[in-house]
Amino acid sequence: MVHHEVLSLRTTKRAQFSDITRDIHNTVAKSGIRNGVLSACSLHTTAGMTINENADPSVASDVLWKLGQLVPHQDAYHHAEGNSDSHTKASLVGLSVQVPLQDGRLVLGTWQSVYFCEFDGPRSRRVHVTITGE
Amino acid sequence: MVHHEVLSLRTTKRAQFSDITRDIHNTVAKSGIRNGVLSACSLHTTAGMTINENADPSVASDVLWKLGQLVPHQDAYHHAEGNSDSHTKASLVGLSVQVPLQDGRLVLGTWQSVYFCEFDGPRSRRVHVTITGE
Amino acid sequence: MVHHEVLSLRTTKRAQFSDITRDIHNTVAKSGIRNGVLSACSLHTTAGMTINENADPSVASDVLWKLGQLVPHQDAYHHAEGNSDSHTKASLVGLSVQVPLQDGRLVLGTWQSVYFCEFDGPRSRRVHVTITGE
Repeated sequence: MVHHEVLSLRTTKRAQFSDITRDIHNTVAKSGIRNGVLSACSLHTTAGMTINENADPSVASDVLWKLGQLVPHQDAYHHAEGNSDSHTKASLVGLSVQVPLQDGRLVLGTWQSVYFCEFDGPRSRRVHVTITGE
Repeated sequence: MVHHEVLSLRTTKRAQFSDITRDIHNTVAKSGIRNGVLSACSLHTTAGMTINENADPSVASDVLWKLGQLVPHQDAYHHAEGNSDSHTKASLVGLSVQVPLQDGRLVLGTWQSVYFCEFDGPRSRRVHVTITGE
Repeated sequence: MVHHEVLSLRTTKRAQFSDITRDIHNTVAKSGIRNGVLSACSLHTTAGMTINENADPSVASDVLWKLGQLVPHQDAYHHAEGNSDSHTKASLVGLSVQVPLQDGRLVLGTWQSVYFCEFDGPRSRRVHVTITGE
């Protein structure tokens, strides 16, 4: 069985981690699939996906700050749109995550949440969720 | 249903992003699978896979330039082959990508292409594509 | 068909790559699945997964050293636990890997091994392996 769903979100800052774990859980409930794997894929090239801590919001802000230090907004880039840092960060964190689905529930560690990683917002964004299994 | 296919390519520079989206599309056509997920995995340790912009080639060159700044070719590495930078970049961008497959077509955003990321070329390289679905 | 299995391991250093390829192979043998994809997901937020070289151990130590240079343990972080570097590195290398499964065996390149990437050890850790296929 295969279930597809597109999540829409609106980011509010240039760089921001948005916790979409609740939306991801909802796609599982709708799918009727109980065992398999869920893939969540950013449909953009200046925004990625990651899994990280959900307890202390300073974790996400520290990760974003360090990414900004490593890949500054202004640098000796050639791309005329001025967002080569965003493209670089998307490739570094990756465009998608996968989460196991076992007995009807997503397998996430105690502190894990699924984050949409905005690197060139604020914008309207889409995440394609695919669940394959039985 | 599961479909496997190995793509071969020849890179021409030490560091290079090669757009293999057309080849990826061809594997879907051959597979007969209409819904599921496609995985494209680099079979190497000094080359990875990513998804990024296909419109302006300066995006790929900016990303490669910034990766080269962060992880220089020459540094205080111990590995005798002199390509520890390539191994590091492969782990940073990741060895594989996944792309949703819906109603017979790959779901890629408007500006998204699938890139093989050479970090220690030029070489002959292979990408293993697996499509699972129905 | 879907097969789930949780691997447990004990890391012995703060930052360490542990080769779990043999354990991953064992999950395939137990699953009875012969064609599909294997996903191996870290259930933590300060440890990731990657694929890299298995021949010369200095490759893994060079990659870890360079990651430590890029994302130092001590920096202007706000997260009180003092491990924001570990969270950042986990998002950079990624939380999971995927490996094709063809005719009963995992498709890994000649030099590829699957590594659990500890960035905040030593600790007891878990990796969730899911195999989907037929």
